[in-house]
Amino acid sequence: MSADLQGKKIAILATDGVEGVELTSPREALEEAGATVELLAPKSGHIQLWDHTEKSVTLPVDRAVSDADPAEYDGLVLPGGVRNADHLRMDKDSVRFVTELSRRGVPIGVICHGAWILIEAWAVNGRTLTSYPSLRTDLQNAGARWVDEEVHNDRGLVSSRRPDDLPAFNAKIVEEFAEGAHERKAA
Amino acid sequence: MSADLQGKKIAILATDGVEGVELTSPREALEEAGATVELLAPKSGHIQLWDHTEKSVTLPVDRAVSDADPAEYDGLVLPGGVRNADHLRMDKDSVRFVTELSRRGVPIGVICHGAWILIEAWAVNGRTLTSYPSLRTDLQNAGARWVDEEVHNDRGLVSSRRPDDLPAFNAKIVEEFAEGAHERKAA
Repeated sequence: MSADLQGKKIAILATDGVEGVELTSPREALEEAGATVELLAPKSGHIQLWDHTEKSVTLPVDRAVSDADPAEYDGLVLPGGVRNADHLRMDKDSVRFVTELSRRGVPIGVICHGAWILIEAWAVNGRTLTSYPSLRTDLQNAGARWVDEEVHNDRGLVSSRRPDDLPAFNAKIVEEFAEGAHERKAA
Repeated sequence: MSADLQGKKIAILATDGVEGVELTSPREALEEAGATVELLAPKSGHIQLWDHTEKSVTLPVDRAVSDADPAEYDGLVLPGGVRNADHLRMDKDSVRFVTELSRRGVPIGVICHGAWILIEAWAVNGRTLTSYPSLRTDLQNAGARWVDEEVHNDRGLVSSRRPDDLPAFNAKIVEEFAEGAHERKAA
């Protein structure tokens, strides 16, 4: 990972029930590449990380997503965890934030169950991505093409299936976040 | 609940992560009405019930769903629990079982997150139902009309949103299971 993310501000959006390693591992990779990473959540305070079916540690939230300006971020990571993703898609501020970043063509990394909120943000229609296999039909019904790959990149929408895919996922999001927004590149 | 379910055989299909009360409360109501109730799961043995974010008791499975003959059942209950529903939709035997019962017009009671497997079974297109609110978009994208009601009955597809709705849900499934399959009624 030689990409330089100096000066880039990346949001990780998550809530209680997030699969811990899908948050901490990308964050570490992004910070190592020089990015400033902010953990956003529906509420300020702390969120409860999970290790599959067991609670693990809590992490402090940097900013409530309602207080975050979508224009300030150069990239977004959506970790998984079934309960995290199930709750996040019902939070209007979170959906609005993701919708804004998606409209601007900001690169997004999404793993496991994280893609559910992209369905709410109407951000998958016509896009190709992978996910935890349980989301396959929901994504297809939302207009996406679903693939079973360790990591897939569709014009800055970087997706992976599960924690095992994290090394490939991390390398690809660092590369894409360094490249920048796809709409801006086309302009 | 004056409906008589004597001689009726009802399946409850669930796996680890099921929201406990959404399994035990309908089962009690059905057995009180005279039904024979079988707990089916992807595997024989026991399943782990949850109380929201905490594990509760385990329950013995009566039969692996792969060993169950869909033609033998007069009704089906699909409890919720986000992890239960997320796993069940990926199990081919479970999806096949639900598809068969749906095709035969057998009455189905579904609550909370339980409806995800109905999407895999192509059983919601053109139907009206409710669910836990996080499933709303997935159900609409699968062709359903979604309503926010304590209990909704669309030609034997009885749906509710959450544990608070259980009294209304239980009364309605007992009534519908007593009435029998909707295709047979039309014949």
